[in-house]
Amino acid sequence: MRIALVGIGKIALDQHVPALADSPDWDLAATVSRSGSVPGVDAFTDIDAMLKAHPDVGTVSLCLPPVPRFDAAVQVLRAGRHLMLEKPPGATLSEVHVLADLARAQGVTIFASWHSRMAHGVAAAKAWLAGKTVHKGRIIWREDIRKWHPGQDWILAAGGMGVFDPGINALSILTEILPAPVHLRTAELDVPANRQAPIAARLNLSQDITADLDFRQEGPQTWDIELQTDAGHLALRMGGNLLEVDGTRVDGQDSIMGEYPALYARMAGLVRDGASDLDLAPMVLVADAFTLGQRTTVDPFDF
Amino acid sequence: MRIALVGIGKIALDQHVPALADSPDWDLAATVSRSGSVPGVDAFTDIDAMLKAHPDVGTVSLCLPPVPRFDAAVQVLRAGRHLMLEKPPGATLSEVHVLADLARAQGVTIFASWHSRMAHGVAAAKAWLAGKTVHKGRIIWREDIRKWHPGQDWILAAGGMGVFDPGINALSILTEILPAPVHLRTAELDVPANRQAPIAARLNLSQDITADLDFRQEGPQTWDIELQTDAGHLALRMGGNLLEVDGTRVDGQDSIMGEYPALYARMAGLVRDGASDLDLAPMVLVADAFTLGQRTTVDPFDF
Repeated sequence: MRIALVGIGKIALDQHVPALADSPDWDLAATVSRSGSVPGVDAFTDIDAMLKAHPDVGTVSLCLPPVPRFDAAVQVLRAGRHLMLEKPPGATLSEVHVLADLARAQGVTIFASWHSRMAHGVAAAKAWLAGKTVHKGRIIWREDIRKWHPGQDWILAAGGMGVFDPGINALSILTEILPAPVHLRTAELDVPANRQAPIAARLNLSQDITADLDFRQEGPQTWDIELQTDAGHLALRMGGNLLEVDGTRVDGQDSIMGEYPALYARMAGLVRDGASDLDLAPMVLVADAFTLGQRTTVDPFDF
Repeated sequence: MRIALVGIGKIALDQHVPALADSPDWDLAATVSRSGSVPGVDAFTDIDAMLKAHPDVGTVSLCLPPVPRFDAAVQVLRAGRHLMLEKPPGATLSEVHVLADLARAQGVTIFASWHSRMAHGVAAAKAWLAGKTVHKGRIIWREDIRKWHPGQDWILAAGGMGVFDPGINALSILTEILPAPVHLRTAELDVPANRQAPIAARLNLSQDITADLDFRQEGPQTWDIELQTDAGHLALRMGGNLLEVDGTRVDGQDSIMGEYPALYARMAGLVRDGASDLDLAPMVLVADAFTLGQRTTVDPFDF
């Protein structure tokens, strides 16, 4: 199946292009980007021009930042092509609902991808938790914004989501593995005096689960989820890649494919089945945190 | 059908109790409130005690503020009773999703009521707009917080929603009458230096619709929605109660019942049909505004 990539930046070159190159399902037929391109692949700067020139491209994958993504997504769906979206699937929930309606009306697949759900330990964690009751838990998601997003001012601007840009990965795993749905109870947001979006956040969720999200972590980085159940203790470390049960590493996950190859395999399956996958639960929790959150102004932040 | 009211405050006494007294469908059998009661009606201070004492009460209507409402709603649903919620149906979207799942599992009705959708002009406005295309529009929703919410500090606290407490009424009408779904593009939020929630907001929605929400309006109050279409101009004034088409008042709406009687008639129909009505579109737009909104600190506000 022929696919086009829109937005040839760091995440596209690091993850999407290699995943497509190795995929038995997909052939990268075109790119759309203001400045980026992929050697040997037909390159466009305008999405409508690409769609007209490539009726052979049945699927388009968008790697744009959330804010410009909506208009591009509408163009793809109006042209009757299947649509895959990087996380989060939009800048707002209401725009994603509009995309869902449009995809349904056009009879095409829409896939809101959450790459962290494809991390090596997640499926095994979900299987282990099935049928158990979670009594307590905590997410610790602490990384260095200067290392992972150097100079990316947009991420701390209104709509950039701040620390929820990485934090939504933790929430995407949590909402995937928990046996019962979780909801937000309270939230505290730390917003730098010279920015609009929080650089740190603490959440209290139902099932006595807390989340400690921080973008100011220098030195070792932490991406851990720990859950206590009626039948033992589970930990997912390294962003969902390392599973421990009762303190012991659970092996046998090394053969599973990487996050982005797994996402493209999933998209191929959805297109073949005429299905869609648009789970907004991680994004709903973030919107809830912005709605409910108690804001504290903290020290100005500069890259 | 026998019903109980939980939360006997101003809105319950002003609206819910008279609506139930006049209803051919409902018999108010019990109340639950820390301090309020209704003469001649069995009064409780604890919801579980009421549910145990009144197996005859098949339906419970909650008039509590959003934050304490969730735990009460869970008690009602776990007891297998039908549930009616004042607007907004919860403090967060994620908790309302939990309630929806629980109602489905219990096989009972859940109704998220939006009283402004029952204003006299709304159904006629929706009928007139059907099949038309909206080119441009504006909401002007300006009222005096000191008049309508004297001393209610919670409304300007985190989770209190600020100016969206009235503004969500406008959004509930807009999402009801528009022929095509609307989404948020940008938002500006004015937050008093001594408060957490916005006292004014300006929204840019799709279909070129703007919203000007302000809680600081002294003198005449304004609750207007104006829409320009390919086939004329519509205005809903007085909170949805007065309909004008091309500048001329559209008559014939005087026989329609009041907002709260209409809500209870709707609830009776849902219970009889074994159906539910849980449209979160107005709440999604508010959550989106908090997520995307550019915040400006404005003068401190005191009641």
